[in-house]
Amino acid sequence: MSYFKNVQQVKFEGSQSSNPFAYKYYNPEEKINGKSMEELLRFAVSYWHTFTGEGTDPFGAGTAVRPYNHLSGMDLAKARVEASFEFFEKLDVPFFCFHDIDVAPESDSLSETLKNIDEIVAMIKDYLKTSKVKLLWNTANMFTHPRWLHGAATAPNADIFAYAAAKVKKGLEVGKELGAENYVFWGGREGYETLLNTDMGLELDNLARFFHMAKDYAKEIGFDAQFLIEPKPKEPTKHQYDFDVATGLAFLQKYDLQDTFKFNIEANHATLAGHTFEHELRTARVNGMLGSVDANQGDTLLGWDTDEFPTDLYSTTLAMYEILKNDGLGSGGLNFDAKVRRPSFDTDDLFHAHIAGMDAFAIGTKVAQRLIEDKVLDDFVADRYKSYTEGIGLDIVEGKTDFHKLEKHALSLTEINNKSGRQELLKATINKYLLETFAQK
Amino acid sequence: MSYFKNVQQVKFEGSQSSNPFAYKYYNPEEKINGKSMEELLRFAVSYWHTFTGEGTDPFGAGTAVRPYNHLSGMDLAKARVEASFEFFEKLDVPFFCFHDIDVAPESDSLSETLKNIDEIVAMIKDYLKTSKVKLLWNTANMFTHPRWLHGAATAPNADIFAYAAAKVKKGLEVGKELGAENYVFWGGREGYETLLNTDMGLELDNLARFFHMAKDYAKEIGFDAQFLIEPKPKEPTKHQYDFDVATGLAFLQKYDLQDTFKFNIEANHATLAGHTFEHELRTARVNGMLGSVDANQGDTLLGWDTDEFPTDLYSTTLAMYEILKNDGLGSGGLNFDAKVRRPSFDTDDLFHAHIAGMDAFAIGTKVAQRLIEDKVLDDFVADRYKSYTEGIGLDIVEGKTDFHKLEKHALSLTEINNKSGRQELLKATINKYLLETFAQK
Amino acid sequence: MSYFKNVQQVKFEGSQSSNPFAYKYYNPEEKINGKSMEELLRFAVSYWHTFTGEGTDPFGAGTAVRPYNHLSGMDLAKARVEASFEFFEKLDVPFFCFHDIDVAPESDSLSETLKNIDEIVAMIKDYLKTSKVKLLWNTANMFTHPRWLHGAATAPNADIFAYAAAKVKKGLEVGKELGAENYVFWGGREGYETLLNTDMGLELDNLARFFHMAKDYAKEIGFDAQFLIEPKPKEPTKHQYDFDVATGLAFLQKYDLQDTFKFNIEANHATLAGHTFEHELRTARVNGMLGSVDANQGDTLLGWDTDEFPTDLYSTTLAMYEILKNDGLGSGGLNFDAKVRRPSFDTDDLFHAHIAGMDAFAIGTKVAQRLIEDKVLDDFVADRYKSYTEGIGLDIVEGKTDFHKLEKHALSLTEINNKSGRQELLKATINKYLLETFAQK
Amino acid sequence: MSYFKNVQQVKFEGSQSSNPFAYKYYNPEEKINGKSMEELLRFAVSYWHTFTGEGTDPFGAGTAVRPYNHLSGMDLAKARVEASFEFFEKLDVPFFCFHDIDVAPESDSLSETLKNIDEIVAMIKDYLKTSKVKLLWNTANMFTHPRWLHGAATAPNADIFAYAAAKVKKGLEVGKELGAENYVFWGGREGYETLLNTDMGLELDNLARFFHMAKDYAKEIGFDAQFLIEPKPKEPTKHQYDFDVATGLAFLQKYDLQDTFKFNIEANHATLAGHTFEHELRTARVNGMLGSVDANQGDTLLGWDTDEFPTDLYSTTLAMYEILKNDGLGSGGLNFDAKVRRPSFDTDDLFHAHIAGMDAFAIGTKVAQRLIEDKVLDDFVADRYKSYTEGIGLDIVEGKTDFHKLEKHALSLTEINNKSGRQELLKATINKYLLETFAQK
Ligand SMILES: [Co+2]
Ligand SMILES: [Co+2]
Ligand SMILES: [Co+2]
Ligand SMILES: [Co+2]
Ligand SMILES: [Co+2]
Ligand SMILES: [Co+2]
Ligand SMILES: [Co+2]
Ligand SMILES: [Co+2]
Repeated sequence: MSYFKNVQQVKFEGSQSSNPFAYKYYNPEEKINGKSMEELLRFAVSYWHTFTGEGTDPFGAGTAVRPYNHLSGMDLAKARVEASFEFFEKLDVPFFCFHDIDVAPESDSLSETLKNIDEIVAMIKDYLKTSKVKLLWNTANMFTHPRWLHGAATAPNADIFAYAAAKVKKGLEVGKELGAENYVFWGGREGYETLLNTDMGLELDNLARFFHMAKDYAKEIGFDAQFLIEPKPKEPTKHQYDFDVATGLAFLQKYDLQDTFKFNIEANHATLAGHTFEHELRTARVNGMLGSVDANQGDTLLGWDTDEFPTDLYSTTLAMYEILKNDGLGSGGLNFDAKVRRPSFDTDDLFHAHIAGMDAFAIGTKVAQRLIEDKVLDDFVADRYKSYTEGIGLDIVEGKTDFHKLEKHALSLTEINNKSGRQELLKATINKYLLETFAQK
Repeated sequence: MSYFKNVQQVKFEGSQSSNPFAYKYYNPEEKINGKSMEELLRFAVSYWHTFTGEGTDPFGAGTAVRPYNHLSGMDLAKARVEASFEFFEKLDVPFFCFHDIDVAPESDSLSETLKNIDEIVAMIKDYLKTSKVKLLWNTANMFTHPRWLHGAATAPNADIFAYAAAKVKKGLEVGKELGAENYVFWGGREGYETLLNTDMGLELDNLARFFHMAKDYAKEIGFDAQFLIEPKPKEPTKHQYDFDVATGLAFLQKYDLQDTFKFNIEANHATLAGHTFEHELRTARVNGMLGSVDANQGDTLLGWDTDEFPTDLYSTTLAMYEILKNDGLGSGGLNFDAKVRRPSFDTDDLFHAHIAGMDAFAIGTKVAQRLIEDKVLDDFVADRYKSYTEGIGLDIVEGKTDFHKLEKHALSLTEINNKSGRQELLKATINKYLLETFAQK
Repeated sequence: MSYFKNVQQVKFEGSQSSNPFAYKYYNPEEKINGKSMEELLRFAVSYWHTFTGEGTDPFGAGTAVRPYNHLSGMDLAKARVEASFEFFEKLDVPFFCFHDIDVAPESDSLSETLKNIDEIVAMIKDYLKTSKVKLLWNTANMFTHPRWLHGAATAPNADIFAYAAAKVKKGLEVGKELGAENYVFWGGREGYETLLNTDMGLELDNLARFFHMAKDYAKEIGFDAQFLIEPKPKEPTKHQYDFDVATGLAFLQKYDLQDTFKFNIEANHATLAGHTFEHELRTARVNGMLGSVDANQGDTLLGWDTDEFPTDLYSTTLAMYEILKNDGLGSGGLNFDAKVRRPSFDTDDLFHAHIAGMDAFAIGTKVAQRLIEDKVLDDFVADRYKSYTEGIGLDIVEGKTDFHKLEKHALSLTEINNKSGRQELLKATINKYLLETFAQK
Repeated sequence: MSYFKNVQQVKFEGSQSSNPFAYKYYNPEEKINGKSMEELLRFAVSYWHTFTGEGTDPFGAGTAVRPYNHLSGMDLAKARVEASFEFFEKLDVPFFCFHDIDVAPESDSLSETLKNIDEIVAMIKDYLKTSKVKLLWNTANMFTHPRWLHGAATAPNADIFAYAAAKVKKGLEVGKELGAENYVFWGGREGYETLLNTDMGLELDNLARFFHMAKDYAKEIGFDAQFLIEPKPKEPTKHQYDFDVATGLAFLQKYDLQDTFKFNIEANHATLAGHTFEHELRTARVNGMLGSVDANQGDTLLGWDTDEFPTDLYSTTLAMYEILKNDGLGSGGLNFDAKVRRPSFDTDDLFHAHIAGMDAFAIGTKVAQRLIEDKVLDDFVADRYKSYTEGIGLDIVEGKTDFHKLEKHALSLTEINNKSGRQELLKATINKYLLETFAQK
């Protein structure tokens, strides 16, 4: 049977196409600097938003009209798997991602939950044999069920810590079974609601203990996926311990975990933390910690994680600039941790939204690549910092100076020649590249 | 003498030009729907940011390197006038705007201040005789001098109210003298710092009294410019009475001033109030109150009025969509209430920044015009609301129904057919129009 | 049977009490300026948060452990009614508030929904006969069911408008039946998600049409409750039409509804709109539009409506200052539109939270009353504005001056004597009153 | 001569006093847990806000009426020193803090600036001989002069780096000369405006190089003050590298500087970064990095650093809770990095504001001390986490378990007993302690 009868295979038709179910800019086979767009961008569909999500919001019931809405329990879970592979194939997307309970229903009994997971994982494994799609990453949901109300690895209750360990143990086994290239930790409830009742020191120590045990277990079973922390500042928990990349980095260094983890950076989490998306990417990049990306966008006039599909071409261009400079994402990818708006409730919207996001990243990629090829920013930066390649600047960089010599140098200066940062000109240049990359086809 | 020797006449050279001092998209003579871009966009230079501003910020001294920095007092004021007309002409911009003390130094003596203004106004009038540039609007600065520390028309001190009246009286006379097409009221200190010491009711009444007297005086002297209120929520005063368009509208209606005023809408003020720029434009438009625009952009990750030059093409497109739907701005225009970033300190940056902004609005205009011509949004909206053009919907609109009839209708419904809002598809469409408008040249 | 066995009658025991289930500051019989606290504060319990709410959040399932969790449908609805009256009585709270579907389950069939409502309303009416508690207000939920996904009275679908009319018609009938003192309109989905698909002008006109029909119907059935609009800016809808009090006021004036409505002001909605709670109260008060209060608090470091129980004594003091200055709330009251935090999941927390809120408002009342009695702020304000009671200031207020006379006055001034606003001293005074009101018992 | 004739010696007069120039709660000699309040709180006056500040804001000229306003240059600098010691003594405050150019005028010539500093430092040293007041910390201003427009140690210009080194070299010498107990680094322009022109990696490396050279030079001259980094997220620079405590910690660990520095935590910087003040204090405390405090408060409805005097008793209580738990601040103190509001322009306001702040911290100290003595929070926390003191929890903490054992434990659980976090009860408890600490005197 077909779950998405309205839509046939989505193909690249070029920018002149008026087919709403065609790519206008994303051509998976087009080469960017020697790599196909498919290989470079490594798009992934988020199972939770696209198949499990129901279109609820804090003030409203689910609106999503889905062909499996009449089912429940394992029947529903299986129908979703079937639908998902039809979707992956119609969209021709190379990866997907899931939390354990996105794919298999959670029971109040842990053993039953694990059994449900095993059954669905076997079904997914069968699909993977004949499908082109691969598992970018999986993870364990440790935030939805009431048991996690005070956290998982940072819960004040050791039984909960143990329960979380059992879930992640299974998650690592599933990742290995399905060939996941990464394993993600998002600590949605790892944080605190109020300091009045919180032992922050113990909670952080416990979180580190948990991560070390996870690392040991992955090694034990030979699961060599990249571990990723996904920072987020303040939702659902008032304060989450992995606030942003820098906070995560402080934690990883303190607990000697910096070689075990990289970051999975989400655009909307960046803006909730007060940063741009590109800031978080750059911070991870200069620290060698850029692992993967949750590709979405937020609404900076709203104060929560809206998880919108990414359509802002400035954002996709500057993100791809960092990713291209990082020589790609390695085992990571661009996962659409994004949901259709609640009023976009039919299944066509699922296609429209993914196409919008993939085209937006394709456009960003091409603009960023031309910026890099033309050395537009590189030349400006090189010139701006060139004083560090000679004289006193080189001495500074090479560690050959001290406050005595620097003071002497400073006292000898008759004039200081600062140069304009040219922010306005650079922004106009970005606009020009955005339009002209496509005008000159 | 020339103040801006680096730069010659700025001309339209087309998108292929790599001359940083040329327009790439703004062609003043190009016709958009029968009007030249120059007539339609009515760009204005803000005197305060471009000639009076020194590049300070709350933590730093002025950085702006300007050819008249060595001067002071009336000599400085006159040099700035000379420079400004050279700038207007090199930029080929049709309008400018100023506050009284942008152009003439404020003295502690009111009579001397008024004399200074008269002297400079005479000089400007001379320039206007031979220049193509015109005065879009002027206004009185009633927020910089320490005397305004508690407000002007809303000050707790009646002497200050009187002083403000004298300033606005002169402002109206100057506007008439120089042929200003509008007169602006921005109440930077018309608000309160803390309710603990504030009589909000009296202050609002006084503000209305002030506006009525201004209206009467303008009528008396035959100055028929459009009066404009410029809303802003919370800077420099903790709460300003003209928070946003809706707040201004409530005030104007209450005090029977709604026929006297329209709004001067600033993009960055919109976002500080929690709205998009286009929201404020639409709100004014549907109430027949869209007067003029302070064209800039803010940084929604920062919490103050950054007054950046507008380069975001989404913002310029959606703003121009509202303006084109409004059949232009009438006597208003697009005033760059925008300043170069503090590290963009040389005079070249003044040109780069204005060119960036004018090109961005030219691009936005062309994209918006094509959206309108192709009825992309209009058709979608017409279809979405078509239930109000027939049957029970038409009865609602025509006032022919009541709760009895509506309940009966509702009870008779077997099914309700909502349709998707298609936000993701519409956003992808905007991206396509943004790129294809220029690709298909 | 008892639903809350842990808790006996909650009584005032005074500040020395260490009984967590006793009032320490709220003494319902204590007179404040001639009125008992019970009569003055008119506390109400929100049915939705306290009985219907399940402790979900956007990332988590319900955590609330409630004695009726095993029930469903009408059985659940009836158990909740029983529990609610036990709760009201144990808490000794004089009012409650509800949305239609808080008390009766919503069906996909309108007639069945209305039947459910009738059945539960009859049951509530029985309880009311013997209970001291009264209905402060009721309202219709037009935001939870998927049918409202594009709005109710502002939906693009006329069938939805009719459906909303049927719901409000029933709501007005229920209000009359149960003796509600007010009727509330909160437009959670009356707004837009994106201007790209929205006809703002038509939507606002329709909203006004709806309100006029509601007014006519209430008159027809002789329901003379106060109509209240509850402003909220941006959740769940990206932009809501009743953004804040000022925006509501602009709307009501435009559509000639200002005599029909007052405002129900919620603290957390105020801060989401960028205002303090007291700002919204003052704005309503000076316009004669202060109707009722949703007493809660937000977290200004989070960007959504957290609906916390009010415990901030600054907020309760400044709110009660406005309310006392307004000579109380008339037919309105202080409704705890507040929910226990998700990790506060047991029924004891429901008592702790309400006691915390009632004590906090009792404290605020006593501090505010002493500030008023001692004329601490009144004297400061009177002195600050005294220039408007004489000379030129009095002329301004009495409309006896113009810009000519004011300019002459301004030119005659040799010195301007502004006085410090003394914000720091006033804040220290508030602290002193906060502590000393209770120290001097 | 006297600079502050209106005000005599400020003394503790108790809460009944109505003398606006008396402490009502701060009694320097009162013992808190064995230490006098003076020793425990170590209050400091910020030279910049109180003596150098002029009451400007981005839209307004200085309003501050000061007895030395008629002076300029070194005369002004000397008068300010005289006034400051009169102020310190009248206020009986034990510490002060300054930036180099707060006390001595900056010249365009570095050697002249250094000479000015030396001259004023000699004058201050003389005062210190006979005064009780001491220097809590000094620092170098590397953000006001235009030369710093792109940063200091992170400037793209090596000459600027050298200039900064000369300034800090002198700062360290001055600190040693005056017996400063700490030396502060606040990187107001150490960050970036736009990534488009920024080499973040080089800038961060250079910042670390600078800190290592500073450390070496302090050691060389035998200046053993505690080095402090003061984090701040986004003003004046769009993004500052020391965003918050966690970000600073990541940086210090990466560059092996964690033993050289602690943090100087400012309340308003915390909230600008999206944290509470107590969050930043707790984060520093659990990492052993709590050095000193800039005691002020922000306005979370405004988006910039308002640097208000601290009067919020919740904030002072929770801050003092962390400080008392930290066994005080060691060589640090509570520095009022706070300015009177611009409309609080006379010298009396300087006294009112400091008294308000000192009383607020004295109140917070007493409330926090009682919370600690009564173990109100400690007992709750101990009970909440007690599962980690036995059985599987103890195994986790002691590193004696792994995912196998934890899974086995989890599978064996028949029920999970989470307990309510009791946030509402705890908040009511804080209110009770706030009032009852002073009621029971
Ligand atoms: Co994500
Ligand atoms: Co997200
Ligand atoms: Co403006
Ligand atoms: Co502005
Ligand atoms: Co409410
Ligand atoms: Co709310
Ligand atoms: Co500070
Ligand atoms: Co600050």
